[in-house]
Amino acid sequence: MAKLIALYKHPENKEEFDNHYFNVHVPITAKMPGLGDMKVTKFTGSPMGGESEYYLMCEMYFDSLEDLQQALRSPEGKATAKDLMGFASDLFTLMIGEDA
Amino acid sequence: MAKLIALYKHPENKEEFDNHYFNVHVPITAKMPGLGDMKVTKFTGSPMGGESEYYLMCEMYFDSLEDLQQALRSPEGKATAKDLMGFASDLFTLMIGEDA
Repeated sequence: MAKLIALYKHPENKEEFDNHYFNVHVPITAKMPGLGDMKVTKFTGSPMGGESEYYLMCEMYFDSLEDLQQALRSPEGKATAKDLMGFASDLFTLMIGEDA
Repeated sequence: MAKLIALYKHPENKEEFDNHYFNVHVPITAKMPGLGDMKVTKFTGSPMGGESEYYLMCEMYFDSLEDLQQALRSPEGKATAKDLMGFASDLFTLMIGEDA
């Protein structure tokens, strides 16, 4: 099992971000070959009070690291990367992970 | 459903961090009342190559935001917070989230 994790900083315009994210980006991303479960978390705050460090997280599950890397190299993977650069280039960080 | 998410930056000494995290911190954290599933992800890299922004993430599930906040205020919650400050005060960020 391998995971691709996207973390997004707080956008300036949250309504615009949400609109593009949920209506455009998620459907494009969901087309990646080999993608299993896809889980989006919205951060609402911090236990210490104040704003959370990030706005949103998406966890994408693949059977293996090889499947994940193949998905990223696929036309669908390139399409979602292109879309990501278009609406959130200064907001996101991408990481590869595995269950510990 | 409410989630408490801890993100950790890369520690200087990963072996020492892992040893304390898995053998001391996780068992203390697991005692928090109302805690459901607890999932640890280790980051292994980034799709763009290079080191991931973070080293490790822990997701802790509670039935509700109220349960999460009660857990943090409990003696067990205070014990895990104290332990956290002791071994990772400069590494962690905590966030509260919900499934989107």
